[in-house]
Amino acid sequence: MTEPQGGADPKVFQTTALQDGDEWVINGEKWFSSNARYASFLIAMVVTDPDNPPYQQQSMFLVPSDTDGLEIIRNVGLGYESEADDHGSHAYVRYDNVRVPKENLLGPRGGGFIVAQTRLGGGRIHHAMRTSGRVQRIFDMMCERAISRTTQGELLSKKQMVQEMIADSWLEMEMFRLLVLRTAWRIDKYQDYKKVRKDISGVKAAMPGVYRNIATRALQIHGSLGVSWEMPFTKEVMESFHMGLADGPTEVHKVQVARRVLD
Amino acid sequence: MTEPQGGADPKVFQTTALQDGDEWVINGEKWFSSNARYASFLIAMVVTDPDNPPYQQQSMFLVPSDTDGLEIIRNVGLGYESEADDHGSHAYVRYDNVRVPKENLLGPRGGGFIVAQTRLGGGRIHHAMRTSGRVQRIFDMMCERAISRTTQGELLSKKQMVQEMIADSWLEMEMFRLLVLRTAWRIDKYQDYKKVRKDISGVKAAMPGVYRNIATRALQIHGSLGVSWEMPFTKEVMESFHMGLADGPTEVHKVQVARRVLD
Amino acid sequence: MTEPQGGADPKVFQTTALQDGDEWVINGEKWFSSNARYASFLIAMVVTDPDNPPYQQQSMFLVPSDTDGLEIIRNVGLGYESEADDHGSHAYVRYDNVRVPKENLLGPRGGGFIVAQTRLGGGRIHHAMRTSGRVQRIFDMMCERAISRTTQGELLSKKQMVQEMIADSWLEMEMFRLLVLRTAWRIDKYQDYKKVRKDISGVKAAMPGVYRNIATRALQIHGSLGVSWEMPFTKEVMESFHMGLADGPTEVHKVQVARRVLD
Amino acid sequence: MTEPQGGADPKVFQTTALQDGDEWVINGEKWFSSNARYASFLIAMVVTDPDNPPYQQQSMFLVPSDTDGLEIIRNVGLGYESEADDHGSHAYVRYDNVRVPKENLLGPRGGGFIVAQTRLGGGRIHHAMRTSGRVQRIFDMMCERAISRTTQGELLSKKQMVQEMIADSWLEMEMFRLLVLRTAWRIDKYQDYKKVRKDISGVKAAMPGVYRNIATRALQIHGSLGVSWEMPFTKEVMESFHMGLADGPTEVHKVQVARRVLD
Ligand SMILES: Cc1cc2nc3c(=O)[nH]c(=O)nc-3n(C[C@H](O)[C@H](O)[C@H](O)COP(=O)(O)OP(=O)(O)OC[C@H]3O[C@@H](n4cnc5c(N)ncnc54)[C@H](O)[C@@H]3O)c2cc1C
Ligand SMILES: Cc1cc2nc3c(=O)[nH]c(=O)nc-3n(C[C@H](O)[C@H](O)[C@H](O)COP(=O)(O)OP(=O)(O)OC[C@H]3O[C@@H](n4cnc5c(N)ncnc54)[C@H](O)[C@@H]3O)c2cc1C
Ligand SMILES: Cc1cc2nc3c(=O)[nH]c(=O)nc-3n(C[C@H](O)[C@H](O)[C@H](O)COP(=O)(O)OP(=O)(O)OC[C@H]3O[C@@H](n4cnc5c(N)ncnc54)[C@H](O)[C@@H]3O)c2cc1C
Ligand SMILES: Cc1cc2nc3c(=O)[nH]c(=O)nc-3n(C[C@H](O)[C@H](O)[C@H](O)COP(=O)(O)OP(=O)(O)OC[C@H]3O[C@@H](n4cnc5c(N)ncnc54)[C@H](O)[C@@H]3O)c2cc1C
Repeated sequence: MTEPQGGADPKVFQTTALQDGDEWVINGEKWFSSNARYASFLIAMVVTDPDNPPYQQQSMFLVPSDTDGLEIIRNVGLGYESEADDHGSHAYVRYDNVRVPKENLLGPRGGGFIVAQTRLGGGRIHHAMRTSGRVQRIFDMMCERAISRTTQGELLSKKQMVQEMIADSWLEMEMFRLLVLRTAWRIDKYQDYKKVRKDISGVKAAMPGVYRNIATRALQIHGSLGVSWEMPFTKEVMESFHMGLADGPTEVHKVQVARRVLD
Repeated sequence: MTEPQGGADPKVFQTTALQDGDEWVINGEKWFSSNARYASFLIAMVVTDPDNPPYQQQSMFLVPSDTDGLEIIRNVGLGYESEADDHGSHAYVRYDNVRVPKENLLGPRGGGFIVAQTRLGGGRIHHAMRTSGRVQRIFDMMCERAISRTTQGELLSKKQMVQEMIADSWLEMEMFRLLVLRTAWRIDKYQDYKKVRKDISGVKAAMPGVYRNIATRALQIHGSLGVSWEMPFTKEVMESFHMGLADGPTEVHKVQVARRVLD
Repeated sequence: MTEPQGGADPKVFQTTALQDGDEWVINGEKWFSSNARYASFLIAMVVTDPDNPPYQQQSMFLVPSDTDGLEIIRNVGLGYESEADDHGSHAYVRYDNVRVPKENLLGPRGGGFIVAQTRLGGGRIHHAMRTSGRVQRIFDMMCERAISRTTQGELLSKKQMVQEMIADSWLEMEMFRLLVLRTAWRIDKYQDYKKVRKDISGVKAAMPGVYRNIATRALQIHGSLGVSWEMPFTKEVMESFHMGLADGPTEVHKVQVARRVLD
Repeated sequence: MTEPQGGADPKVFQTTALQDGDEWVINGEKWFSSNARYASFLIAMVVTDPDNPPYQQQSMFLVPSDTDGLEIIRNVGLGYESEADDHGSHAYVRYDNVRVPKENLLGPRGGGFIVAQTRLGGGRIHHAMRTSGRVQRIFDMMCERAISRTTQGELLSKKQMVQEMIADSWLEMEMFRLLVLRTAWRIDKYQDYKKVRKDISGVKAAMPGVYRNIATRALQIHGSLGVSWEMPFTKEVMESFHMGLADGPTEVHKVQVARRVLD
């Protein structure tokens, strides 16, 4: 979906597909296609019907990775590894007259958004569930450290600043988990994306902050060990940033929550 | 319970009762006894057994308001009303050789703490429930304002800074309510104060922040009207501070949460 | 300036003045005119030239309080005092065919904004200076309490949560004061409002948060005494809200800072 | 200085040196010795006088890297690079009967702390100056992005949530820089470490938060590009964590600030 010029707003996408007989011809560039280098096919969201209303202009296509004209410009990596390492896994992809048979249209023509929203709804709550579990693990490590490390004659767990970090983390973790559970329950109950959009955007918007706060505190309580590659905390903090961007930036989801609340 | 020299730590209480025949003789001072001026009896927590272990030294007594030697030194008010207004309702009370019959002992001798904890457990969750309702009302007012007030050519609800306040408030309100509900459910389920101490202290510690944040944002969105006496927001902000002190300061409850988590 | 329908955006003001011979005739309503009940004249900002560009439509007039047609609808109070107390000092004023001689025009016709901005620039830095001093006083009280109150066998000043409140407050107070000082120095140096707009809006936007944080912590450290009318903290917290509204809401000043930075 | 069992509290250090004729014999382990693998000598802080008062027990020694008995157990890396990469630069070092001539004693015997504090004072303000510069650069990148990226029909710089990030960042950056400058000025003026301890600890304690906040916002505004290795933001966020640990954790410096304020 995402293109070099923007991802948060699908209305800026410019990759197009023109019908030519039984084929579609795709032209444009996509950015941050996760794991494209390992995939045997890509899913591309492209403008097929520019004259439709904004949210009905795009369609989704399956594009086999070995199709002529499909090229990975480079594989971008996350974080601060050096480019030399060459294990970037988010592809910057060029589509240059890429031809796919018309059977490769995924869902209805002009229905790209609906397909995307449906998948992303599930994706977002799934991210939140995974985050909930990872946060629990980070929290457990923080607690273990607090009751095993001594400074100035007593355990870290006796220091009020550490106690506050643990109490705040426990509260944020528990409240977030309850919100995730209620949202999952509502998804099951209503079976209607429209009725849970507020909940899903809410969970998505709350997630990166909770995740980052708790990972940051766990890192800090571990001291120099915490920033070293012997512990997972820097990776977890980075992951919390990804959760604030993948499937839409936090800002966009907050706007969504406000809109749904005020509807 | 609270005395001029401290309330958060019951170990600093100095009011004593000495047994004299069939009576107890109470001496000391109590501070911030809510509504004492209107009450027909007070409940006093006093040291009866100074040689017991710390948490078994105190007992509770019923003290009829018209008992000789019982005096309200002054009725302290909340907030910034002037003293002239004279509607302070938190009494600074002196017990000067106040005699009560031994039947007025409430619960077992030396059992003041247990009685207090039991009552306060219920009191704290009750505060949280009430807060949950008030926060909902404040939140509704904030939303109403956002969709009815215009500035710079559009409704406040179109401004992203306002949207963010609404989204953040909704999330904090919902997550807090879920925590309150789970805590209430656990109280019912376990019927055992020890098993829910962490939950109750957690709810107590989370409450003032959520309450204050949402009341503050509602006040701000209402502009000058919001700080005027025509709206309830300044009162609500003040109330949020009370919730961070009455039945124990937030700091003490955070320490409790950390301890229970690490047990 | 402020009217019932809005204050943050002067473009919504609707009070008008029409020239009639040697007089101007003013019609409309003003809201939150501070101390109007005690004043011998008011200053009104009114639309005189509706066909000019937006920021040149309004002019300022001196209006003697005893002019016919000038009426205080009610005197609105701050905070949660009861209306019965009747010491509200922010007037809701009606101008009903109020006639003033043309000499009462303050500054150039259509120059209301320029006059207002100039006065408000000075007003805002003045608020910040006063706030700086009040924050220092609150901070001193917080420290005094920390080194004189005992709980759980030691002074509050030995508790890390209290130490953190003191350290954070000291840092916020000092950094804010330095920003105020630099801004004042720049005002003196440049003698040009345009060159210091960013600084003034920055100080104005930072002020309520610093003020509120420190007043809130001082209140909390004082416990029940802190929320009582025997201490100034609730008043100070309220005042911090006023500082986030009077002379323009924080949101508007943040937008200004961003704009000037990006210019 | 730092040892596996602790770094924040120098009183836990256990590496010892015993005098043997004209030599000192060092035994123990050190952790996180930056760049030890590239150094031609190390500086070790070791217990020489265990019977002295706590802060006079340790001394500093120069230890040439090729001395017998000196061994790097492993080179620990920062962040989430894989260990395979083998460019960790913080050494876990073992001293096993390492002998150095008595001339290698650095400063007075038992004066390790004083030497360390003096160096660290300078080190801390130096970190703060460097941070100030890096933050300016990050801030500039954030601004550049805001005025060059379009979403939903307008520049990011027109979105209030982005404006708020820019305004808050500008304020934090400017206020922090002013604090650094005043501290540097006081260091020059007083030439007395004791008179500037509060200022130095204050700057040290404020630094990681300001740094992290601004780096986090810059990252977020850059979207997926911001978390990629094509931009420096993840590295900067990590660096902000280092600034909260190297030369003492934030918690310890906050305690220091509070102590000095209350003195
Ligand atoms: C780990 C990871 C994996 C990803 N995998 C994929 C993938 O497999 N396929 C794919 O197509 N994409 C993928 N993405 C991209 C993701 O969908 C985009 O990053 C996201 O949609 C934001 O788009 P952008 O990066 O172009 O940022 P932009 O759209 O340029 O937005 C940048 C920033 O501007 C601000 N902003 C944007 N819009 C608004 C607004 N309306 N109001 C206020 N502020 C705003 C936000 O701070 C935002 O972060 C992935 C991203 C990450 C981090
Ligand atoms: C609205 C209201 C109604 C009340 N009604 C009653 C009543 O009816 N009967 C009654 O007996 N009491 C009542 N109280 C008093 C209440 O119980 C006490 O305020 C509370 O226990 C705190 O005691 P304190 O005020 O003496 O503060 P202190 O014990 O002096 O504490 C002051 C502050 O120090 C800090 N602090 C305290 N202990 C610690 C710690 N261990 N670690 C870190 N920081 C700490 C906190 O910031 C705390 O707020 C009421 C209070 C309020 C606000
Ligand atoms: C103590 C005090 C004394 C005062 N004295 C005077 C006086 O003497 N004379 C006088 O004329 N006025 C006075 N005022 C009024 C003051 O100027 C206004 O309160 C202020 O300009 C805001 O206007 P408003 O109250 O109508 O709020 P509105 O303009 O309705 O704004 C309400 C809220 O909406 C939000 N908001 C507004 N605009 C934006 C935006 N662009 N983007 C995002 N959010 C926005 C903010 O949260 C704002 O607080 C006083 C106010 C106070 C609190
Ligand atoms: C990038 C980097 C470079 C470094 N380079 C060197 C070097 O060259 N030489 C060297 O000797 N050391 C070096 N260090 C180590 C540094 O000095 C220590 O990390 C620091 O002193 C903390 O010690 P620690 O890691 O053992 O954490 P601990 O002492 O175990 O502390 C861990 C955590 O516990 C908490 N904590 C600790 N004390 C208290 C307290 N009193 N109250 C409340 N909470 C507390 C804090 O959250 C703290 O982060 C470096 C560290 C980093 C990150």
